[in-house]
Amino acid sequence: MTNMDQTLAPSEVVEKARLAKQAAPKLNLLTTEQKNNALLRMADALVQEADSIIAANAEDLHRGRESGITTSLLDRLALNVQRIEAMAEGLRQVVALPDPIGDTLEEFERPNGLKIRKVRVPIGVIGMIYEARPNVTVDAAGLCLKTGNAVVLRGGSSALYSNKRIVEVLHAALAQTDVPTDALQLIMDPSRSSVDEMLKLNGLLDVLIPRGGASLIQNVVKNATVPVIETGAGICHTFIDESAQPDMALQIAINAKVQRPSVCNAMETLLVHRKFAERHLGIIGEQFTQHRVELRGNEAARKLVPSIAAASDKDWDTEYNDYILNVRVVDSLDEALEHIRRHGTMHSECIVTENAANAERFLTEVDAAAVYHNASTRFTDGFEFGFGAEIGISTQKLHARGPMGLPALTSSKFRIVGNGQIRG
Amino acid sequence: MTNMDQTLAPSEVVEKARLAKQAAPKLNLLTTEQKNNALLRMADALVQEADSIIAANAEDLHRGRESGITTSLLDRLALNVQRIEAMAEGLRQVVALPDPIGDTLEEFERPNGLKIRKVRVPIGVIGMIYEARPNVTVDAAGLCLKTGNAVVLRGGSSALYSNKRIVEVLHAALAQTDVPTDALQLIMDPSRSSVDEMLKLNGLLDVLIPRGGASLIQNVVKNATVPVIETGAGICHTFIDESAQPDMALQIAINAKVQRPSVCNAMETLLVHRKFAERHLGIIGEQFTQHRVELRGNEAARKLVPSIAAASDKDWDTEYNDYILNVRVVDSLDEALEHIRRHGTMHSECIVTENAANAERFLTEVDAAAVYHNASTRFTDGFEFGFGAEIGISTQKLHARGPMGLPALTSSKFRIVGNGQIRG
Repeated sequence: MTNMDQTLAPSEVVEKARLAKQAAPKLNLLTTEQKNNALLRMADALVQEADSIIAANAEDLHRGRESGITTSLLDRLALNVQRIEAMAEGLRQVVALPDPIGDTLEEFERPNGLKIRKVRVPIGVIGMIYEARPNVTVDAAGLCLKTGNAVVLRGGSSALYSNKRIVEVLHAALAQTDVPTDALQLIMDPSRSSVDEMLKLNGLLDVLIPRGGASLIQNVVKNATVPVIETGAGICHTFIDESAQPDMALQIAINAKVQRPSVCNAMETLLVHRKFAERHLGIIGEQFTQHRVELRGNEAARKLVPSIAAASDKDWDTEYNDYILNVRVVDSLDEALEHIRRHGTMHSECIVTENAANAERFLTEVDAAAVYHNASTRFTDGFEFGFGAEIGISTQKLHARGPMGLPALTSSKFRIVGNGQIRG
Repeated sequence: MTNMDQTLAPSEVVEKARLAKQAAPKLNLLTTEQKNNALLRMADALVQEADSIIAANAEDLHRGRESGITTSLLDRLALNVQRIEAMAEGLRQVVALPDPIGDTLEEFERPNGLKIRKVRVPIGVIGMIYEARPNVTVDAAGLCLKTGNAVVLRGGSSALYSNKRIVEVLHAALAQTDVPTDALQLIMDPSRSSVDEMLKLNGLLDVLIPRGGASLIQNVVKNATVPVIETGAGICHTFIDESAQPDMALQIAINAKVQRPSVCNAMETLLVHRKFAERHLGIIGEQFTQHRVELRGNEAARKLVPSIAAASDKDWDTEYNDYILNVRVVDSLDEALEHIRRHGTMHSECIVTENAANAERFLTEVDAAAVYHNASTRFTDGFEFGFGAEIGISTQKLHARGPMGLPALTSSKFRIVGNGQIRG
């Protein structure tokens, strides 16, 4: 299933994935101290080499401006001393996290005397496919190496020079440690074909983690034959129930939308119980308008607040990541649950209510990575959950679900010790 | 990503997958008692309807003989009263297993007062693609329903009538319980296209579990866009180290090969340290020959035991599932580790040694679901591990690895309870 048999010279992707795969077994044998030492060296090197990284980044920014990329993309791409120090600080925080590798997950003895122990082991080689932000390069390298995994990075072409310089700096740091430099690979081919190739690299890559917009993620999910951990897309809802405390409901709704609209755990649709809406939708609409949020609603919402525009069918399935919010007035908890079932992406969903039975139903029946009672969906995040840095937020149900810290980057194996047992 | 938008009438696969998906949320709300009651009714119904199931099976056997399928396939296909009682007994054993759904996996409170609880939930809809053995139909139905999952079964065309009758009997039993009959679906279309369709049914199926021969599994792994749990293929090795106790080594090797050669955890290649081989390979060869095992070896093995045939390059990568064994004499533990790295399928691997350091190196460095010291690889099995019935043995590293009992058929979600927390 790999390209290893081809007679032509292997592509950059195959060559680098092979080097990563060869390095992986060595990483598995490193102590926590050896890995932490490497991460600290990486952090120091980034700060020491900040000037050369910023110079490489300037090249990317220049090319980006020439090709007319948006200012928000330019902002995500731009590096300065503070941002590089933040990347280094991120690595130091990963050092401080407990190393899950080697942990005993289960341990038992069978009646025939077999001693069975399930232990955490690295996954092997992790492929990351992502977009413009160069800090993902550093975050992914740190999280993967801490968990004894080799990593093959394929960042966005707009950050090519920045990523190249960052990985050069990290390689130079690793060369002074026990972590093999081959464990960290960056794909330089900016064409689509290098992504396509990674998607089919069964036997060399153990998992692919896409991070970025919906189209990037869907391309990976739809076309990869390597196992994928799907991350990120979030059409998140907040349901304000009849019995909600008005102040709490308003604050949670505003926070879920405007505290950082561009991220996956921000709210896209506000569902409001009719009886609550009749008394409070006016003030809620005003508050959102003051925060410059454009509102699109169903008929029932527009009857109560005529300034709300009409929502199209498509709007309910759109992740705006922007100052736009759908508002739907519903007649019941059941109608809210049905709306979330049809339009949610199983990311983060919230109910604001003082009714314990309704809260219990919502938390049990909504099928999502994180379900909230009386708190903002913006908390779905590795740091907020206390896991430390995260490699992404899984919106699938296999392997990991929700914020993925270090344990999500591990697998397990059964170690069985006998004294000659055979099966009868 | 589903076919839900097409204007033509939906195919059998889409229609049944939709029904399963609609049933899934109801299953999530059932109590353990309700699910167990359904499983017991299913077990009773199978026994009561044994005659009609055997009659349907006779039709499959008749068609199989006419189309000239092998006797071993006919044997796997054949049902009798004992085998049907064994299927019913399998369901009763699943009843006796603890229900993982609702279990609290982690529980903690954050400094801001958020109470976070990670709980086990069903995966949703599980697609099973398998071959001739009709007992898989019953096993999969029992395991999936016990874990609150809906299941779409696509068995081998050779067992079509048997599976159809079995599912009719199970549906009739479910109709008298709180488990919706739509939770159990059997695809009747015997053509390849129904499998192809299942592979791409993202949005309706949450996971695919293939069970069967290597070509079936590889077809699913290579072509599915739905997440897959890869099972089964096993090229398993036993390494007899220099210091192994000769009797123990012989018994473990014979057991690993001949106790049941057709299964995935049977040994395909015996690696023998040169110093051990010089003294004992003759008697080992004799014993295997007495068990009618054909031996194929490397040069070093054939020098010591000339009756061993020459192994081809391909043999080392072949899962025989038969009375054929590769024998390779190696100079060191390192050579054995390297052989397993190149030719193993990460299923089950064994070292027989009295050297504790070598055992530790083998258990740590071999990358497989189950690694054994001084015990037969044949123990890699849900019952032998004490997990009860298994849905398969995962040979991949994500989600589940090794024998998969009920917990492998679950996902998790975070339930978060606050009192108005918003993110600053």
